Amino acid sequence: MTAPMMFKPVGYVRSNADVQELRSRQAVAEIVVFEEFSGALEGVEDFSHLFIIYWFHEHPGSPKPGWKAHPRGREDMPLVGVFATRVPGRPNGVGLTVVELLERRGNTLVVKGLDAFDRSPIIDIKPYDPWDVKEGIHIPDWWTKLEKEKMARGGNPTP
Amino acid sequence: MTAPMMFKPVGYVRSNADVQELRSRQAVAEIVVFEEFSGALEGVEDFSHLFIIYWFHEHPGSPKPGWKAHPRGREDMPLVGVFATRVPGRPNGVGLTVVELLERRGNTLVVKGLDAFDRSPIIDIKPYDPWDVKEGIHIPDWWTKLEKEKMARGGNPTP
Repeated sequence: MTAPMMFKPVGYVRSNADVQELRSRQAVAEIVVFEEFSGALEGVEDFSHLFIIYWFHEHPGSPKPGWKAHPRGREDMPLVGVFATRVPGRPNGVGLTVVELLERRGNTLVVKGLDAFDRSPIIDIKPYDPWDVKEGIHIPDWWTKLEKEKMARGGNPTP
Repeated sequence: MTAPMMFKPVGYVRSNADVQELRSRQAVAEIVVFEEFSGALEGVEDFSHLFIIYWFHEHPGSPKPGWKAHPRGREDMPLVGVFATRVPGRPNGVGLTVVELLERRGNTLVVKGLDAFDRSPIIDIKPYDPWDVKEGIHIPDWWTKLEKEKMARGGNPTP
């Protein structure tokens, strides 16, 4: 249960978005899947949304002290554990985002809402299905506060 | 972009559920986080739902031919790519489930809905937030057919 796990990239992100665009969740990006895994894509186009699991390749060496961080680096926000946030500086630098699949062009997926940097290695792609839609969820106050501030600055509201 | 990635378990699953209970998404399981990562859990209890990213430790050696599989092993279902299903036999044996957090007891999370086997190593835990709730999603007909059959056998409906 404690042995390390070795994974190999199945593709990578191609994106021109800057940090602000990534945070807006409106950026369109491409996911290029390596040829050897092309069969794995068969039928993904029948799902409107996908989970993209990727590697924070630019942040692997920056673990947070005590595994705690202020959300968005904001010191006026509570210091919380990295498992209560999506910050990259976590024990395993794995990112996860639900994206909208706009188009599949062969081995390339055109997706909306991915907040991964250009060239991020892709670990896995999974279909998003009705079991993943949760209702009546509860989130902490700091989360709501950050979102309200983003909207006040002209950002997009949470769908 | 093609170099392998090495991850270490941050904890493991403790569960008595059998396959049928796991598929029902009603099983209650525990996630035991290793002591060195206990700080990372601070504040997770303020979220009602979490993403659990784990390793299919019992299936790492069973890749699907051409990376395609029949959903649930049912040959009357279309042969689709593993990225269009949640089957374990994928390029990287990573599992992902949204669970309901029932309780946190120190380093142990009591969760509902996890479909991971006992002793599965945990790769990451992330909060589920309103951005993860997608409306008007589209899924293929085979997915709907399998769910309807499950309900007809007395299973739980999709929430």
